[in-house]
This record gives sequence, structure tokens and C-alpha cells, in this order.
Amino acid sequence: MAALRVDLGELAPAPDVFLGHCAALHLTFIEQLTTAMANASRVADKDALARVVGIVLDRYRVLSAELERLHLDKTDVMQPHLAGVEEFKRRTEGGEWFEQVASAHVTIGFLTDFWVRLSGGLSGELGQRVAEALVAGDAQAPLHRILERAIAANPRLSSRLALWSRRLVGDTMLQARSALVLHADSSRDEAQIEPVFTELIAEHTRRMDRLGLTA
Amino acid sequence: MAALRVDLGELAPAPDVFLGHCAALHLTFIEQLTTAMANASRVADKDALARVVGIVLDRYRVLSAELERLHLDKTDVMQPHLAGVEEFKRRTEGGEWFEQVASAHVTIGFLTDFWVRLSGGLSGELGQRVAEALVAGDAQAPLHRILERAIAANPRLSSRLALWSRRLVGDTMLQARSALVLHADSSRDEAQIEPVFTELIAEHTRRMDRLGLTA
Repeated sequence: MAALRVDLGELAPAPDVFLGHCAALHLTFIEQLTTAMANASRVADKDALARVVGIVLDRYRVLSAELERLHLDKTDVMQPHLAGVEEFKRRTEGGEWFEQVASAHVTIGFLTDFWVRLSGGLSGELGQRVAEALVAGDAQAPLHRILERAIAANPRLSSRLALWSRRLVGDTMLQARSALVLHADSSRDEAQIEPVFTELIAEHTRRMDRLGLTA
Repeated sequence: MAALRVDLGELAPAPDVFLGHCAALHLTFIEQLTTAMANASRVADKDALARVVGIVLDRYRVLSAELERLHLDKTDVMQPHLAGVEEFKRRTEGGEWFEQVASAHVTIGFLTDFWVRLSGGLSGELGQRVAEALVAGDAQAPLHRILERAIAANPRLSSRLALWSRRLVGDTMLQARSALVLHADSSRDEAQIEPVFTELIAEHTRRMDRLGLTA
């Protein structure tokens, strides 16, 4: 995370939009992970995925508590984002079990990095509490271990997972972009967005590298 | 709970079988609740169901920690129960959203009462820790409120939900019975089982009554 320095600054939405979108997205992460848990055939994988569900649920609880602290109505702030995050989930869910795990690994990894970065645009203490909540627990390591084991057991999975993960990145980047407040002068926006996405993709590439996959 | 007095005594399985079955069952509760959460159209219902997922996940975490405390291998103790609990989930999942919520309400309500009772057959401290974990948090109230509101908005749901809930009780009782250690002298077993199931059904009937449904 030390490498992540560039800020999204004025592209961050207001707290109600930030929290509503991020909370709605976390509900879809929980659904995605629970589907992968249900479809896992090994107890150890079910147990590991249950732990990741718990980590993501704890993050949702913090986002939800921040909404309450700001006296915001959850329906008002989350409803506008449901259709978008559900469409994103539908496009990235994957039919086979290992694809479902890879989807969680890629999308939660990328989007958590993104939302942590975006939280820099919230006011001081709120931004800090949200950033801390989003990195609490290690959601990535258990997903990494499941995929690593699946690839070791069946090396031919590598190329299929690399292809699938590459396909996910486009939708994941679009989901991230949909959270940004873009201005009329789009060239200035792009100048701000580009270095951030370059870093997010570098993080993603490192996660793929650790699995021996070409990003 | 004060009314629950009869014990299942010697019909309780050994700790490894108890914890393995109960943990596997809680994973299916999490799946059932997350499906209902994903299919809810209202944010308030999604949020309430996410909270119930959290409560059930916390119970799973305790069961899982007790397995670790006893140095039991999770795969060894949970795997034998997966097929049974998954078949139970399949038979009780419900096609429509309100049926999915009613399934969670009926099956988690009944089976939690049952497993708390069964925990009386475990050795002192373990039984007490498990019983405390299984009643921690209030999983029933949020489910009750969702159903109450759905019925108020559409009174014709009452008879359909009453029918659906009645259909669930049979499978739920079979799932409970499958956790008991039955002996050759089955008439003695039945003499012990019957008063417990009578009380469990009385609790179930009270939950239905509170929703204005005939059990």
C-alpha cells in the first residue's frame, strides 16, 4: 500500500454517495463470496470463504454505522446504487466455482484498493475511519490460497484463470469509474484518474503475479 | 426459553459429531439468508438480512473455534454432514423471496431451539459455551419484522405463508432427528424424543402466532 500515493481528490463523491455506493457494493461482495462458499466442495474452502464473508460483513457494518452516525437514511443513499452494483455482480459472477473465487479475488482486491484511495477525498476523520475499516482483516490471503491450491492441483487452470481475470478487469474498472464525480472539463479529470488507475492496475498485476498468472 | 426443560440427555452425539453437524448446518443458514438478502428489493430488508447473516456467522465462528480448541480437523468432522444439510437446504429454500425469508425464520428458529437443547448433552463447559453462542444476537426478530411487514402490505400472503411454513416443519424435524444418536431400543428413544419435540413445536407455534399465522 506504501506505493499508493496519487490522490483522487476532487473526484470523490460527497459522504452520502460514497457510503451508499460502497455499502451497496459490499452487499454484492457478500453475495458473491457466499455463492462461492456454497459451491465449494471442500470443507477447508467453505471455512476459508466463510471467514472472508465475515471480514467483508464487518466492513459493511462499519459503513452502515457511518451512515447512521450521519443520520442518513440507508434506503435513500443505497437504493440509487443497487441496480449498478447488481449488474456488475451479474457480469462478473462466473459459472464455475474457481471462476467465482477468482472473481472475488480480482474485484474485491481492485475495488478495495480503489475505495481506500477514494476515501482520501472524504473529510479527515470520516475518511480515515472508512479507510481503516476497508483494510481491516485480510480478505485477499484466503482467496489467494484457495486459487494457488486449485492451480497446483490442476496446472491447466492457469491459462483459463488468467483469461477470466483479464476479462474481469474491464468491468471492475468501469465499476470504479462509476463512483467518480466527473466534470465538464473531462481532460482535467482524465489527467487525475490516469495515474491512479495505473497504480491500481499495478497492484492487480502484482496479485496475479503472486499466483503465477499473466495479468 | 424458560418453558424448555426436558433434556435430550443420552441422545446427544459426541462433541466432534455435534460440532461438525451444527457448524455445517450454520453454513447452510448463511447461504439461505444471503440468497434472501440478494433477492430482497428493499434496502431495509437487505440491511436487516445482512445483520442476521452476521449473527449466524458469529455463531459459526464460535463452533469453528470450539473445533480448533478440541484439535479436531474440520474436514473430518464437517464433511460427513455436508450432503445432509445441503439436501435439507435444497428442500426448504423456497422459490419466492418471502418464502426464502419464511424458511430462514422457521428453520433457524426451530433448529436453534433444538441445538440449544441438544447442547445439554455435551460436557458442562463446552455445552454451556455452545448454548450461549447459539442464542447470542437476535436472529429471529429481524426475520419476524420483515414477514410482519410483508403480510401487512399483502394480507393474502398469510395463507400462503402458513401453508409454506407447515410444509417446512416436516423437513426441519427430520433434520433435527438426524442429529440424534438413536439406540436399538427405539421405544425408549421415542419416549425421550417426544416431549422435546412437543415443546419445540410449541415454540414454533408461538412464532407463527406472533405473525398471525396458523401453525
